[in-house]
Order: sequence, then C-alpha cells, then structure tokens
Amino acid sequence: MPQNDDLSTFDAATAVTRTEGGGLLADLDPGWDVGGGILNGGYLLAVAGRAAVLESPHPHPVAVSASYLRSPAAGPTPLTVVPGTAGRTLAHSLVTLGDPDEPALIVQATTSTLTDDPSAYSQPMPDVAPVEECFSLAEHAHLAPAGVQVPGLSLRVDTRLDLATAGWAMGQPSGEPVIRAWMRFADGREPDPLALVTFADALPPSSFALGNFGWAPTVQLQVLVRALPAPGWCLVEARASEVAGGWVDEDYRIWDSTGRLVAQSRQLARAPRG
Amino acid sequence: MPQNDDLSTFDAATAVTRTEGGGLLADLDPGWDVGGGILNGGYLLAVAGRAAVLESPHPHPVAVSASYLRSPAAGPTPLTVVPGTAGRTLAHSLVTLGDPDEPALIVQATTSTLTDDPSAYSQPMPDVAPVEECFSLAEHAHLAPAGVQVPGLSLRVDTRLDLATAGWAMGQPSGEPVIRAWMRFADGREPDPLALVTFADALPPSSFALGNFGWAPTVQLQVLVRALPAPGWCLVEARASEVAGGWVDEDYRIWDSTGRLVAQSRQLARAPRG
Repeated sequence: MPQNDDLSTFDAATAVTRTEGGGLLADLDPGWDVGGGILNGGYLLAVAGRAAVLESPHPHPVAVSASYLRSPAAGPTPLTVVPGTAGRTLAHSLVTLGDPDEPALIVQATTSTLTDDPSAYSQPMPDVAPVEECFSLAEHAHLAPAGVQVPGLSLRVDTRLDLATAGWAMGQPSGEPVIRAWMRFADGREPDPLALVTFADALPPSSFALGNFGWAPTVQLQVLVRALPAPGWCLVEARASEVAGGWVDEDYRIWDSTGRLVAQSRQLARAPRG
Repeated sequence: MPQNDDLSTFDAATAVTRTEGGGLLADLDPGWDVGGGILNGGYLLAVAGRAAVLESPHPHPVAVSASYLRSPAAGPTPLTVVPGTAGRTLAHSLVTLGDPDEPALIVQATTSTLTDDPSAYSQPMPDVAPVEECFSLAEHAHLAPAGVQVPGLSLRVDTRLDLATAGWAMGQPSGEPVIRAWMRFADGREPDPLALVTFADALPPSSFALGNFGWAPTVQLQVLVRALPAPGWCLVEARASEVAGGWVDEDYRIWDSTGRLVAQSRQLARAPRG
C-alpha cells in the first residue's frame, strides 16, 4: 500500500513540480540508489519522463532515450523540457535533468496515448517459475557474494529472481548472461508506463551471471513502452549480447501479469572489470 | 569498387563538410530513399554520426539515438553539434540535422575508439543460408508484391534475403515477423561503424512477414556499434516483438563475416495499416 496519503513511494520520489518562476524541479531521492550513493538510471529516466508528459499533450512516454553524462547527487534538481513536433498521435521533446550548464541526463522523449488494446502480434513470455518459487533479493541480502551490496533500489522494487537465472546469487554463475525476475513496487503501487521505465533498468547487471560482479555504469539507455500494463507482477528479463572492449549491452523485455509484452529497453554500459 | 576517385557512394552521400562560417553541411543524396522520396532513417543517422565524430576526439559512433521529427528533403542540409562531456574513453554530443528551428533529426551521440579485440562473450550468429543461396532484392524487383516498390536504398545496399525469412517476397508471408539478409555496399566498400549505423535500418519492415506491406515510418531509433567489423558480408536480422495500437518495433542484430556480433539497434515505428 502507498505509504503517505495517496502518494506511493515511487510517485513521491519521481514527482516534478513547477516553480514560481515557471521552471521544473524534482527532488531526487537518495533511496533509489544502486550502491555507493549512485542513483539508478531507470529511476532518473522516470523523473525525466514525468517532466516530458507534464509538458506534452499526451500522458505516456512511449520512447525515451537518455545519455548519462554525469551521476547526479540526490536533492533538488532542475529539469528543462524543449518541445519538438507535436500532433494528434505523438509529441517529441528534449529533456535535460540537472544544471543546464552541466547536465546529468539528456533525454529524447516521445509521448503518446497508450491503450491496452489487444496486440496483432506479441512475443510470448518465456517459461518462468511462479513468483512464490522465486528468490527475493531483499530477503537474502545477507547471502550476497562478497563485494555485492543490495542497493536501495532492491528494497523499493520487489525483485524475485527466477532460480534458473540466479545461480550467481548462490555462488554458481551460469555462464549465460541472462537474468529474469518478477518485479513490482514493494509498497504495492500498480505498474504504469513510468514504472516500466524504471523496471527497464532495475535488474542486477546480467554480467553477474558470467561471475563478474562489478558495477556496469549506463552510458546510453533507450526504453520503449508498448502498452498499458495490467495490475500485478511484471516479468523482467535482461540479457547481454556482447561483452568486449570494455563495453556491455543490456537488452530488457518486460511482460505484464497477463503475459503481454509491455516494454523493451536496450542500454550500452561500461563493462565491469572481471 | 568505389565509383569516383577514392570516395565510395556511401562516403560521398554521407560527407559532412565545414563551411567558411564554421558550420557543418551535408548534401543529402536522393538516391538513399525508401520510396516516395523519403530518405532512409539509417542513412540520415549515418550523416549525423559523421558530424558527431568530426567534432569528437574519438573516431567511432558507439551509441546513437535519434528522434525523427520531420522527413528532410534531399539537398544541402545544415548540421549542428553541441558537445557534452568528453574523456579518454568516450565523448557525448547532441547533433541536430536540418534547419535548427525546424530540425528533421535530433541525435544523441556517444563516440569512442572501437577495436576488433576478441569478445569475452558474443551472441552467436543464427543458422542462415550462404550468400550465394540467398535472394537479391535488387535482382528480383519485378517480382515485388503489388504496391511494394524496390527503393534506391536496395540498389546501394546489396541485400540478399535468407529464403527462410523471405516467403513474403514470394507471396507467402511466414506469420513470424523476422527478416534476415546478408548485406554489403553494392560498390564493394567494406563495412565500418558508420556503415553499420545504416545497415541497422536497411531491411524491409519485418511486418512484411506478417503480410502487411505498408510503410512503417521510424519515430525513434537507437543503434549500438560494438566492434570494428571484419571485411565482407554482414548478416543483418530484424525482428518485431509487439505490433499493437498503431506501433511496431524493429530489433536488429548484425554479425560480421567472422560471425561476431558487431551492432544492435531498436526502433519504434508507426505500424503500417493492415
């Protein structure tokens, strides 16, 4: 259940308000970190997405691409939105998060009005164990491999790893860079397009499954939101396709509780040292 | 072989020059169209990528994300590059193609210095027929389904469809939205990172394999370049994962002639009418 009044933890942490001067302001929440005071990239992208829809005739982000220039500190942070073309179907804008002279994120946002209309074609959900047979990251923090700290993100996003892709959490990396988990907000807030933007960067690096437990900072991340998700748990899968030259990718697909593909993301990250 | 002096058709068509006033200028080539005078999105993104590396300490685009605001006309077109953070490993910039007041493309570019160092992990190439057993789009233009015109792009990028995914070209759509083809420049110019940016949007829409032959205009496209490609043919695969609500995605993976994954892309496009 949401914690204070009607506002969920996520909605409070991603709120964007208009200042008296007409500017936009977020108050970045230190609780959405991935360790070491570094805020999660999907959380930051959801804040930028909220600014984009605030300035758009359309209510939903459908495509957001971010370059991560600097890691922003928690606390009050300005945002700017420069509108692009806008029409009945979609609107473009360019969102900057952080000091305009030294931005942390630059985000291209496309907004539209999503529906839950049935798909003409939808990639099926992979076979996965039911939620109750999966492995809670938060509940097993004490079992984490040496050097791996369970981040604040994992306390706010309830992440239940499919044991078939969680060998690394038990000291037995599979050697295949794939991680799958059921996901929902810990306070029970139901998923929506902005939640999917956060879920699309909320799994541990899939290079953990290669036995490589370093941090993999995001350089550029694109998230596509494809439909309004149904209430309940989402299945989130991350997969790396190439690890080379100091770079790694993460390719996410997210299905809602009805088994419908509702979001995709791809990011380029710096590869953790092995 | 390159057609005039040392400059290949692709290099000539994507050339970016500096004007006496210090600005950047491209001369968009009408020959890189997808039909109806519409220039290919991957071609336009390669022009923007060339501007990005021209203004970067690094020679290669590794991540480029574009929003397609307007379809630009062929002919002289200004570009602007706003630099972001830059370091020894990578540099960010924001590239605008077209009239700054009414841009056609806005592109976030990350540049770096790629190598052909071996991969720590690389997704293997799918099974595919050898080039000589594949289907040349250009050579079979007269067999195209009613309403499908072979675009200029297909004459400049030699595209050899794997028959296993080319049923739609013979009036027998497979019902699975996947298209695979061997690809190289028709004039024999070898692939490089900018070529991969173009290849990453050069296949027919994979919705053709659903029997839906409409045009699918790109809304937002991200291309990741992962390594310097070896000389020879590249294998390019496009796959849609969700077709719904007037939207379709295209997910590309590109392997070089040694079987190494060298590029990935994902785009959100408007779905063609069925």
